[in-house]
Amino acid sequence: MASLQKQTNTDGENNYEKPGMPRTPKEWKKWKEERKTVKRKWKEEKLIKTLEKEITREKDKEAKKLKEDDDKRTKEKKGRPYTVSIALPGSILDNAQSPELRTYLAGQIARAAVVFSVDEIIIFDETGCTQKSTEGDFDGIGKKGQANVQLARILQYLECPQYLRKSFFPQHKDLQYAGILNPLDCPHHMRTSEDCIFREGVVLDKPVKPGKGSFVNVGLQKEVQIDRELRAGVRVTVKLDTTQEDKKMRKGTVVAPSTPRTSAGLYWGYSVRLALSLGAVFSECPYKHGYDLTVGTSDKGTSVDDVAFSRFRHALIVFGGVNGLESSLEFDEALGVDDPSLLFKHYLNSCPGQGSRTIRTEEAILITLSAVRPRFHSAIKKLDTS
Amino acid sequence: MASLQKQTNTDGENNYEKPGMPRTPKEWKKWKEERKTVKRKWKEEKLIKTLEKEITREKDKEAKKLKEDDDKRTKEKKGRPYTVSIALPGSILDNAQSPELRTYLAGQIARAAVVFSVDEIIIFDETGCTQKSTEGDFDGIGKKGQANVQLARILQYLECPQYLRKSFFPQHKDLQYAGILNPLDCPHHMRTSEDCIFREGVVLDKPVKPGKGSFVNVGLQKEVQIDRELRAGVRVTVKLDTTQEDKKMRKGTVVAPSTPRTSAGLYWGYSVRLALSLGAVFSECPYKHGYDLTVGTSDKGTSVDDVAFSRFRHALIVFGGVNGLESSLEFDEALGVDDPSLLFKHYLNSCPGQGSRTIRTEEAILITLSAVRPRFHSAIKKLDTS
Repeated sequence: MASLQKQTNTDGENNYEKPGMPRTPKEWKKWKEERKTVKRKWKEEKLIKTLEKEITREKDKEAKKLKEDDDKRTKEKKGRPYTVSIALPGSILDNAQSPELRTYLAGQIARAAVVFSVDEIIIFDETGCTQKSTEGDFDGIGKKGQANVQLARILQYLECPQYLRKSFFPQHKDLQYAGILNPLDCPHHMRTSEDCIFREGVVLDKPVKPGKGSFVNVGLQKEVQIDRELRAGVRVTVKLDTTQEDKKMRKGTVVAPSTPRTSAGLYWGYSVRLALSLGAVFSECPYKHGYDLTVGTSDKGTSVDDVAFSRFRHALIVFGGVNGLESSLEFDEALGVDDPSLLFKHYLNSCPGQGSRTIRTEEAILITLSAVRPRFHSAIKKLDTS
Repeated sequence: MASLQKQTNTDGENNYEKPGMPRTPKEWKKWKEERKTVKRKWKEEKLIKTLEKEITREKDKEAKKLKEDDDKRTKEKKGRPYTVSIALPGSILDNAQSPELRTYLAGQIARAAVVFSVDEIIIFDETGCTQKSTEGDFDGIGKKGQANVQLARILQYLECPQYLRKSFFPQHKDLQYAGILNPLDCPHHMRTSEDCIFREGVVLDKPVKPGKGSFVNVGLQKEVQIDRELRAGVRVTVKLDTTQEDKKMRKGTVVAPSTPRTSAGLYWGYSVRLALSLGAVFSECPYKHGYDLTVGTSDKGTSVDDVAFSRFRHALIVFGGVNGLESSLEFDEALGVDDPSLLFKHYLNSCPGQGSRTIRTEEAILITLSAVRPRFHSAIKKLDTS
């Protein structure tokens, strides 16, 4: 274009006749205007092309993102192969200043656990005088030792999907202030309209034809018939049959509560365990080969920044009470260990340089789980590649 | 020993006479008893040796720890060159279910801030109708917009050392339930017996001789005379004179509230700022060159695991309210930005793979600060070496 312009501007000796080249001033004017129109057209075309390119790039980006999301989902579908357990003394409730705040504190523990997909919460006794289940009568709020049971009960109550609470939690003084608890909003707390192949349910007390399975309330408008006959009142995890055409009576299969996690990578709430002592936290582990990654937390521990975990299947993080993990150890005479760093694979300070002299247990759970989360992931990746 | 026993037991042909070896059953018995005594002695000696070794090891450990602590203290003496600010909407208080829980929630925010040595808390208005100070009358708990002022007041109350509260916080309905608040236990909340060259104080209404400084209550048994005359009732940070011999009237110098941080690396509490909008959080920054590291938090942000910060002086982390940071942005018409990632240098998801559909603001503060703490440190190290 530049050379053409030069030619038309110089108008010198080298000009030779070309068909359509201007000769008079009038023709020149006309020719210039025509050139302008052509140039404008070019510019417009160029702009359109650039825009088209941008749109394509945007689309590619979107497609890439969708693919990534898909990959992520597929990866998730593979399931989560590991579990995380946390242990804490129930005595922390005794530090609350009113029955409402006692309840609220229990709720904070539950929330912290579900935000980080904790699979098991163990309440251990620091004082050496506790009950091992949530059964039994209530002796009044605030009595020592009762804290463990009350904490366990509130944790169980919150973990239970709303539509099942009526079946499993009759009125109880431990739950007197349950109304102030913040909901956990877990994936397994499903609304009626939600679509998921797994659902938590309760076996109904309804007559069943011989050879057919029991009816289960899974929080859908209609009950689901499972593959086997079970005692009424039992809590079950149901995998819904997605292939059936007749949607009038949905069918399902009873699966282990861990199946949503292991097969689909879904977080499926936590179980609650009461331990009579700190030692029992380890010795009564529900996993066959025990916990293979144990972490104790204390401001006297190693900085969490300096630690990497090796691959694991079942992690356990133990938190201390009002006076720290050291004090919990002192109370456990059977354990015979005074140095907590001997009891755990890692003894960590999850908040080096803390600006308060104390960190409360409910705060320590969030702080520690947030600090170890990426380290868990790195450790698991090691597992994948090995 | 085994071979010796064998010899004595066989008692066969190969036995030859040794001086002192037993020959009659009586002698045998005596000999055996003597051996037992010797063995017991050996065992005792071994045990003593082991214990001694352990004690030495323990002592070494202690000496090492003391050295580490010393190193740490020397390091801290260098001071902290950067600040951390957090911003959140006061409207989160309106989500609490009772006046007590409203107060408790404010306390949770304060605790989270001090645990991670936050220097400034900014309460911004999501709704567009707020007051800019904690002055003025109270219109009743729970009214919209009042939440900002109440949150600010409770935060200020908690930050103030206990011995100064009477001077700065007269009875107020916002503080009606202050009794249930957990103490912050910051380094500047000093007991009478504690020894520190810096102390927070209030200027007393006491006659001063011309040319002499005012008297200040710094929480010691006796007041301190400062280097200048100030209006009674002003809060000051005092650097105590450690060289003076006569301890009857301690003297001190007024310093900036940031001096304990910059000169000694001490965490010295947070300041509270009310912002009329999200935009004002940035525009009314008290630092000369503004915030040079801005972080927005949302589950829609980039994973915190994939982020490294560049060096900074003044970091700001902004949290959303009940409906997230996206909703706070929508309300701020003056800002003219709908995409929050345009407003911040980093737009982070501090808890990828969360097990609850929602994360509450008071939880997000602990989770996010725990996740970014090591990243802040890495960024600051960059500053040191550059």
